[in-house]
Amino acid sequence: MTPYFAVIFTSKLNQAAEGYAEMATKMEQLAKEQPGYLGIESARGSALGITISYWSSELAIKDWKNQLDHQLAQQLGRERWYQQYQVRVAKVEREYSFSARDHI
Amino acid sequence: MTPYFAVIFTSKLNQAAEGYAEMATKMEQLAKEQPGYLGIESARGSALGITISYWSSELAIKDWKNQLDHQLAQQLGRERWYQQYQVRVAKVEREYSFSARDHI
Repeated sequence: MTPYFAVIFTSKLNQAAEGYAEMATKMEQLAKEQPGYLGIESARGSALGITISYWSSELAIKDWKNQLDHQLAQQLGRERWYQQYQVRVAKVEREYSFSARDHI
Repeated sequence: MTPYFAVIFTSKLNQAAEGYAEMATKMEQLAKEQPGYLGIESARGSALGITISYWSSELAIKDWKNQLDHQLAQQLGRERWYQQYQVRVAKVEREYSFSARDHI
């Protein structure tokens, strides 16, 4: 499976972020149609939101960044929704997982 | 700044996770004292929690993984708190950020 690539997107929203959730959902659906898309994980706490998308190659990440609807969403995000954000592109080198045998 | 390393930890908690928040806070404080620690970001939504810690080297990550109190916390986590988790070690190759000029 490894290596593959992760885009770590951490963000703080403005207090008024009308339309953000709908756009986030739409972008997630679009990302899934992109070549090289492997998956997405997302969590938003009271202060910080983290979305990590996984991709098969750096080229796949570049293509998604430049996808036209996504470009427009990024621009709207900077104008309307995000107080700040940080993007990190990382190469996933190894991974392991745990699953409880006895779920409560 | 780049390259540096990220440990992406995604988890689902058991419904009863008494003592988890206290341990998470304690481990975050301990991590900050480790050599090579660069930072931590965390968000927990209703379904998924994501914690990303940043490190200067793979050795720093290995040392933190093997730190004794952290080992015990990991064991407790598997026994008590986590329904499942996944750990990914990734090399951060590039990054960029945005900050709104006019905060609301």
